[in-house]
Amino acid sequence: MVIVMALDATEADVAAVVDLVEAAGGEAFVSRGLDRTIVGLIGDVDLFATLNLRSLTGVADVVRISVPYKLISREHHPDRSTVHVGGVPIGPDTVTLIAGPCAVETHEQTLAAAHMAQAAGATVLRGGAYKPRTSPYAFQGLGEAGLKILADVREETGLPIVTEVVSADDVDTVAAYADMLQVGTRNMQNFPLLQAVGRAGKPVMLKRGMSATIEEWLMAAEYIAQRGNLDIVLCERGIRTFEKATRNTLDIAAVPVAQRLSHLPVIIDPSHSGGRRDLVLPLTKAAIAVGADGVIVDVHPHPETALCDGPQALITSDLPELAEAVGTLTE
Amino acid sequence: MVIVMALDATEADVAAVVDLVEAAGGEAFVSRGLDRTIVGLIGDVDLFATLNLRSLTGVADVVRISVPYKLISREHHPDRSTVHVGGVPIGPDTVTLIAGPCAVETHEQTLAAAHMAQAAGATVLRGGAYKPRTSPYAFQGLGEAGLKILADVREETGLPIVTEVVSADDVDTVAAYADMLQVGTRNMQNFPLLQAVGRAGKPVMLKRGMSATIEEWLMAAEYIAQRGNLDIVLCERGIRTFEKATRNTLDIAAVPVAQRLSHLPVIIDPSHSGGRRDLVLPLTKAAIAVGADGVIVDVHPHPETALCDGPQALITSDLPELAEAVGTLTE
Amino acid sequence: MVIVMALDATEADVAAVVDLVEAAGGEAFVSRGLDRTIVGLIGDVDLFATLNLRSLTGVADVVRISVPYKLISREHHPDRSTVHVGGVPIGPDTVTLIAGPCAVETHEQTLAAAHMAQAAGATVLRGGAYKPRTSPYAFQGLGEAGLKILADVREETGLPIVTEVVSADDVDTVAAYADMLQVGTRNMQNFPLLQAVGRAGKPVMLKRGMSATIEEWLMAAEYIAQRGNLDIVLCERGIRTFEKATRNTLDIAAVPVAQRLSHLPVIIDPSHSGGRRDLVLPLTKAAIAVGADGVIVDVHPHPETALCDGPQALITSDLPELAEAVGTLTE
Amino acid sequence: MVIVMALDATEADVAAVVDLVEAAGGEAFVSRGLDRTIVGLIGDVDLFATLNLRSLTGVADVVRISVPYKLISREHHPDRSTVHVGGVPIGPDTVTLIAGPCAVETHEQTLAAAHMAQAAGATVLRGGAYKPRTSPYAFQGLGEAGLKILADVREETGLPIVTEVVSADDVDTVAAYADMLQVGTRNMQNFPLLQAVGRAGKPVMLKRGMSATIEEWLMAAEYIAQRGNLDIVLCERGIRTFEKATRNTLDIAAVPVAQRLSHLPVIIDPSHSGGRRDLVLPLTKAAIAVGADGVIVDVHPHPETALCDGPQALITSDLPELAEAVGTLTE
Repeated sequence: MVIVMALDATEADVAAVVDLVEAAGGEAFVSRGLDRTIVGLIGDVDLFATLNLRSLTGVADVVRISVPYKLISREHHPDRSTVHVGGVPIGPDTVTLIAGPCAVETHEQTLAAAHMAQAAGATVLRGGAYKPRTSPYAFQGLGEAGLKILADVREETGLPIVTEVVSADDVDTVAAYADMLQVGTRNMQNFPLLQAVGRAGKPVMLKRGMSATIEEWLMAAEYIAQRGNLDIVLCERGIRTFEKATRNTLDIAAVPVAQRLSHLPVIIDPSHSGGRRDLVLPLTKAAIAVGADGVIVDVHPHPETALCDGPQALITSDLPELAEAVGTLTE
Repeated sequence: MVIVMALDATEADVAAVVDLVEAAGGEAFVSRGLDRTIVGLIGDVDLFATLNLRSLTGVADVVRISVPYKLISREHHPDRSTVHVGGVPIGPDTVTLIAGPCAVETHEQTLAAAHMAQAAGATVLRGGAYKPRTSPYAFQGLGEAGLKILADVREETGLPIVTEVVSADDVDTVAAYADMLQVGTRNMQNFPLLQAVGRAGKPVMLKRGMSATIEEWLMAAEYIAQRGNLDIVLCERGIRTFEKATRNTLDIAAVPVAQRLSHLPVIIDPSHSGGRRDLVLPLTKAAIAVGADGVIVDVHPHPETALCDGPQALITSDLPELAEAVGTLTE
Repeated sequence: MVIVMALDATEADVAAVVDLVEAAGGEAFVSRGLDRTIVGLIGDVDLFATLNLRSLTGVADVVRISVPYKLISREHHPDRSTVHVGGVPIGPDTVTLIAGPCAVETHEQTLAAAHMAQAAGATVLRGGAYKPRTSPYAFQGLGEAGLKILADVREETGLPIVTEVVSADDVDTVAAYADMLQVGTRNMQNFPLLQAVGRAGKPVMLKRGMSATIEEWLMAAEYIAQRGNLDIVLCERGIRTFEKATRNTLDIAAVPVAQRLSHLPVIIDPSHSGGRRDLVLPLTKAAIAVGADGVIVDVHPHPETALCDGPQALITSDLPELAEAVGTLTE
Repeated sequence: MVIVMALDATEADVAAVVDLVEAAGGEAFVSRGLDRTIVGLIGDVDLFATLNLRSLTGVADVVRISVPYKLISREHHPDRSTVHVGGVPIGPDTVTLIAGPCAVETHEQTLAAAHMAQAAGATVLRGGAYKPRTSPYAFQGLGEAGLKILADVREETGLPIVTEVVSADDVDTVAAYADMLQVGTRNMQNFPLLQAVGRAGKPVMLKRGMSATIEEWLMAAEYIAQRGNLDIVLCERGIRTFEKATRNTLDIAAVPVAQRLSHLPVIIDPSHSGGRRDLVLPLTKAAIAVGADGVIVDVHPHPETALCDGPQALITSDLPELAEAVGTLTE
């Protein structure tokens, strides 16, 4: 941590910074320039962060140098991790395809979508039973009935399932059915939920908040890791920008950036980032080329009657190209 | 709702749209131009929204015309509302000052901050017992012990209290102590929480999500209103942009925009938007001038030792200017 | 300037940084922590910036501490400046109202708008003869014929004029007519234009780029100042964000932030930021309350036939409220 | 174009809209709903855009339906175009690699960079002689001396050259040396420059403004096309967002979106979007996978002494992987 003193800081101001840091058990190195003095701090950064150094007289700025997360950082864990979901690996040695309907509507629709997913080479099934919707008048999901459908379809197809949980209250129920718990973009900073999934004993897919920096996303993952769960897959799904041609702007560079900062696997959701069916395949190819550890894609047997996000679901005629994109490029 | 057909849409495509709308009980008016055909729909828009018209062959775009919220809309409720918090009005005829510490730390600190608040003319006390923090290593709040401190300070000062709730599980506990429940920026789309505060029988302050559009903010308020609670105060607290000089960018125009769209009161948080003490008073003056129904401000007796957001808290020497800003301009 | 070394930097890496800095005539102070080493640099920062320190092996980050502008900075010029436009002051002791039509269309329309401006208390007339338009099919302005109309109207009303220049080529022509040259938002980083207006011998109004940080805006002003012209007025006119309810998001906090960093006057354009007539008066009041040194407002005698931005122009019936807003609050 | 009337619009308000449209030679179709009336317009949209319909009493909104560009639109030109630069094609049938130094510094450095470019398979050389720089204290380029170096290096290597022009004044000079003129991100809406390059008789590479929507980018291309020049290559180079880990956020979806809207070729600049050497190769692979028609990459023989953007330049040891990325995936 570096303290930048103001131009008009006095010697007493500098001494006050040094005293406060030393009283907290740290060391402070003072560098005096022509114009300006800076103080470098050595010691426990998280402790320093509680000292409100920015509030002291004569302090112009406080610059944090080390990253604000530890358990998921690659600094002390250089090898990238693999997370297993019902036996299926997600990590540096594979490209995993996760596919299924945005929302579970009926057993028939979910099974048909699972068969579509398998036809494209998917090894994990996605499907939402609890749906966070911007409008209170939109379909909110089937709840536990949807979880039962997913479990039945797993039985019939052998595909492990990932499904979203939107409330700490529901974590036990969802964990009883799911192979992996999904935390959605709107809940990335729902801290009670992060702590609950951290204790649930199941792998977690953590979607990036649509306006979260990569650093905030990694700090959210740290909340989960702190509860003892390091089986976390990060999912980039687009961020909010001024561009209106797409639902969100896929931040494709987030994949290599997050993979350098954290040892956790990173996948991409091309369906929710683009929000348009015609963009799903190009973005899938880009995701694999950039080095993503997997993709999660919406498919639907009848998107024209889908209760959620029909316009972005792939249809049966798209599956060969999806299979080729995922398969060819992973060989 | 207006359906814009693609340039290459066929007559059969247009007919399919019309048939679907009429089958759903609506009316469809077709306008044919030289290049392009549009179809205007009359009927239940929320029903039309479930028809996935955008997925039909030949449809280029679907434009929604009416607003996606009803109970809080000003269209059918032209008079602006006043919400009462422990007897204190927030609404079009007053400028209400809410002040207090960002986080409740001790009884002594909270009482001192409450006296500061009163000295500046505040009529409601703010203070956080449950703190959502970006870093898992930051102070997370005192929980119910903090609520008890707030209740004691209310007893001693007569100020009603507003405090944040971060989980649907905690709503009953918080509602047992608080006069008003605050939903924070990171929880604006935590839908189970919105529904829980909608049922809690207490007024709610709904902060705008830091990356939420005004329309999404109003839809979040609609979630609360749907559960029977119309005592909602909207709070603009800055949005996320590329500008780094301030913590967030205060969207001051959101006040008149939201007041024209909704009958609910709208206040501003100048402390969290700027994130710097030197901006709080200028932004407070701007808030009142633009027509906000109140402001909510951080004050702290000893910001240099504050456990949360010390750099933005006003101190004792700022209070006369705050009092003048709020008082002079409201007379 | 502070150099942050990577966790795995060697002693040789640190020595290479020190050697490079010392070879350039600077001093380097090394602080070694448990994990990490930082190097503080003392000397000519602009010279250091050319050393590509970030490219050296073992360097994790380079943090600039001093501001990247000098002539317009308040660090060595603590008093705020006043700029005079045809004798009219814009600066800390006044609130100056600049008003007029977005585009000059005819002599009659411009004169009528100038009379409206005077009725509201304006002391400077605005009006565009060269219009940068997003669409090549939109009205592009009258060019020099428009400048002549402005000069005639100045003769008839006594109001000095500010008008936009969009190309370095046109600077001499525009400067021959105008009292103040305006550089628009799309040209804030048109560096040849900045240099040309810096040499033109007339005051300049520099609008903030719609996606420029405050620091970049100040660096653009430094380009003008470098050519010997310190008569610069900064104009905040809204930035680009994800919010669609307004044309741009007025960054009201930019006024106090820029006034603390620079000695130059700062004004606000409430017409272009909101893009809607109903927001102009609330935003004008907010601008004055936050401490802006002036406002620049669109007025039009017949906005329904305006060739540019009619929807945001104030009309005759708005003038008394504008006059009161500007006048009352400045007394 | 569709006019949405306000809830409280009267019959007279609707009639006024219809009359105005018909007087302008258009047709207006009125659709009356329970709550609300909409009016569909048929005719010359650009003419309608001048009518200020939004200013009429009773008008709530005006929705434009057709795209605001024509010459570069794919609507009437379904086949995608190929642009030739000194004989080298950029278009749907090839992946073209353009490489070279950010700035031309010396003949030796430029020639070395050109040899690096060729080693990686580049067929066009990039290099800047006129550099738009945020800071007035940064290296501003060699000007015409730099153009001469580029021409000499073209002679020695056979590579056609693309170089930036920053002012309408310089267009003739730059066009005398260059095979392709580059318009940079800060000049995307420098309309006099767009018009000048439109008349210059050379192909143009138009970089997307860092805060421009795709639609605005295409309208900027239309300015060039209007002057008779359809040899335009669009270049996505990252947009400005809240994310700070990268210099800009590469909007990879812009490639398929722009290719569907326009017949012009679309390439990607992975160097300026990421701003970090370690991201250039992953982003290059993503660019090719998503379907870009080419990439433009910074290379430098000695990035540690580069006068511009050294931290993002590829070095000699990166070239085999670049060659493989471009070559393998295009076969």
